[in-house]
Amino acid sequence: VEAGDAAALEALLEPLHPADIADLLEQIDGRDRRALLTLWPGVMDGEILSELDDNLREEVIATLAPAQLAEAISELETDDVVDFIEDLEPERQAEILAGLDAADRVAVEKALAYPDYSAGRLMQVELVRAPEDWTVGQTIDYLRAAETELPEQFYHIVLVDPRMKPQGYVQLGRLLASRRDVRLSDITEDSFRTFHVEDEQGAVAYAFNQYHLISAPVVDDDDRLVGVITIDDAMEVLDDEHEEDILQLAGVGSESELSDSVRETMRQRLPWLAVNLVTAILASVVIGLFEETLVRIVALAVLMPIVASMGGNAGTQSLTVAVRALATRDLGSSNSWRVIRREAVVGLMNGAVLGLAMAVVTMVWFGSPLIGGVIAVAMMLTLFAAAVGGILIPIALERMGVDPAIASGPFVTTVTDVVGFFAFLGIASMVLA
Amino acid sequence: VEAGDAAALEALLEPLHPADIADLLEQIDGRDRRALLTLWPGVMDGEILSELDDNLREEVIATLAPAQLAEAISELETDDVVDFIEDLEPERQAEILAGLDAADRVAVEKALAYPDYSAGRLMQVELVRAPEDWTVGQTIDYLRAAETELPEQFYHIVLVDPRMKPQGYVQLGRLLASRRDVRLSDITEDSFRTFHVEDEQGAVAYAFNQYHLISAPVVDDDDRLVGVITIDDAMEVLDDEHEEDILQLAGVGSESELSDSVRETMRQRLPWLAVNLVTAILASVVIGLFEETLVRIVALAVLMPIVASMGGNAGTQSLTVAVRALATRDLGSSNSWRVIRREAVVGLMNGAVLGLAMAVVTMVWFGSPLIGGVIAVAMMLTLFAAAVGGILIPIALERMGVDPAIASGPFVTTVTDVVGFFAFLGIASMVLA
Repeated sequence: VEAGDAAALEALLEPLHPADIADLLEQIDGRDRRALLTLWPGVMDGEILSELDDNLREEVIATLAPAQLAEAISELETDDVVDFIEDLEPERQAEILAGLDAADRVAVEKALAYPDYSAGRLMQVELVRAPEDWTVGQTIDYLRAAETELPEQFYHIVLVDPRMKPQGYVQLGRLLASRRDVRLSDITEDSFRTFHVEDEQGAVAYAFNQYHLISAPVVDDDDRLVGVITIDDAMEVLDDEHEEDILQLAGVGSESELSDSVRETMRQRLPWLAVNLVTAILASVVIGLFEETLVRIVALAVLMPIVASMGGNAGTQSLTVAVRALATRDLGSSNSWRVIRREAVVGLMNGAVLGLAMAVVTMVWFGSPLIGGVIAVAMMLTLFAAAVGGILIPIALERMGVDPAIASGPFVTTVTDVVGFFAFLGIASMVLA
Repeated sequence: VEAGDAAALEALLEPLHPADIADLLEQIDGRDRRALLTLWPGVMDGEILSELDDNLREEVIATLAPAQLAEAISELETDDVVDFIEDLEPERQAEILAGLDAADRVAVEKALAYPDYSAGRLMQVELVRAPEDWTVGQTIDYLRAAETELPEQFYHIVLVDPRMKPQGYVQLGRLLASRRDVRLSDITEDSFRTFHVEDEQGAVAYAFNQYHLISAPVVDDDDRLVGVITIDDAMEVLDDEHEEDILQLAGVGSESELSDSVRETMRQRLPWLAVNLVTAILASVVIGLFEETLVRIVALAVLMPIVASMGGNAGTQSLTVAVRALATRDLGSSNSWRVIRREAVVGLMNGAVLGLAMAVVTMVWFGSPLIGGVIAVAMMLTLFAAAVGGILIPIALERMGVDPAIASGPFVTTVTDVVGFFAFLGIASMVLA
């Protein structure tokens, strides 16, 4: 392919799905990518562009003439256009908007006026609606007449009253299976629910998943129908939120992509490591309090990382369960007390089991039952603190309006390290002094 | 509600969505749940049962008479019934199957014969198909005549040839918008793709997400149409897989639920903590090699956990990015070398920045530029090892056919701890001896 054979390249890529071509572009390195883009301008297709990672998309867009770009974008539905341009610089946005036809431009500008991560940014304005007093026959005739203006995919017809308030929706399957004289209002679905333009996208995705929705109308402040959100958009939001949670728990920026540069990757990870350096230093200060004891009994220095490491792992377990349960709304005020109690008991019991095992290892290794006893008690205390901290800290952060996935980690590590070193070295100092 | 007022309870719960009632049942504790179930047998509704967590569902099912259960189940589509009974004991399964009508029973039994986590278990057999030579008019007439036998929700009509091989599908919206004399074969969708009954559910969910599918036909070994998978089922699989990844990365059993008992929770977490105890002991053995140095320079004992902790965090960052990228198929042979190189460089550079910062802290704290230099070099080496281990270990596990989300953690921790302690104490012994 790098031989510069444009025709062969086109023959190879043409049959692929836009999403696969986008993945290919993301996986090859920068030089190959630029070569490919020069060889085959067909890549500048709107659908391929909208499948690209954000940062790559900017790179590719930068190589395009405004007219080319506007043409590529004009094929997309409004929600994809919004997703496309919301992260671009204002002047680039203006250029692209100028290239759209008037109706689309107004729709996109309106969507951009809604807050980030709101339903208004997610919805498409292309939808099919019908007056609530129409019959099946009238609707089918209308659809046949409007053929070319229909959205590419739609699953429901939204019934509206004369003031454009959505009153229900009809599944296309029901519509097809009903006689022409049946009224639309007699075959509406029970699952009907609407979202407000300023609803959070996360809440929308949750509702789609919870209530098995396929599409749902979006209304403005006056309860008037302004757009529709479909399940594939909701699925993408859900996917992104999961990705964010998992990356944030690990201290990797939520926008991290595999195609990021070294510099970008450092910028994402260094702050988290710096925070952890501070908490690690804090733990070392605790150890420093017991320097004298460490010099006298060097076995303590050898064993102390075990206590802290076990605490860290147990804390991560509780923390992850808590963060996930908060994200999926399984953990609420009605059951938090029961879950906290469960975590505390599990922490104590795991601490007892592993503490005893470690006591045996210590006795065999250092021949000291006393140090064995100390490590057993220290592990129980640490795993208890880890479990309770692992669940209480995310709950507290959530109540304070802070995303527990980002902020919980360092707090929990600090708790487990400080408690771990303090318990082990403190008890040892008392018992062995 | 606990006052035993059944009528008030029913009035309260009746308007709720089955999924919300199921959540409610999961969040209240065991005693309240049993009281509620006795008060309001309406809970035994099939849809509510199918929304419950697996372990709670078994608890609730155990309280039901077989006839009651069969009735609750008979309202469900076959894929929900399969999801429902696949985890039950064989005798319980037989009881429920006996209560189904013949056609459903055969369909469910057939689905249970497919492997766990296969497309065959996910699909529903209720679908709408049409011969490929039909026109729009014929299809609509057929749908109107078949009204009562249609699936509750469907989005496409699958075109089949006389031997029942799927040839394409037609979106209902296109069908509605076309004139009666248009042939179905002229309005099929490009996005058409079929799955085999034994395809993995994860691969199916990936394809739905990647290609924005809404529904897709499933075929058997002879390429004959046997069922259809819809996007809501794919969304659920995707959700479950995410959940599994995040829980397994944290060393929590992938089946962990918030409603699990203390005993169940211990059983899930203890093995992971035990594995970590072994790796922590291994790290301690490394420290033990340097006992003499530690006794002479106690500052080393105070500082060494910092090096290991930073290595652990940096390793988790690389590891999480690698595990996620493998799961979403963004990381493949074409780009693994580039990503490994990136991680290595980022690890070295983050190590250099943080190592220098720590050197300054050490000089101020212990007044020893030499120990400061040692910790800077040790941190660079450790963060480099963490980054490379964090990416190579998951890739290697994946190639060996082991799920990297489960197994990578302990390996990476071992690498970072051993390298961290060995580098710091080893260099210190050489330089300061």
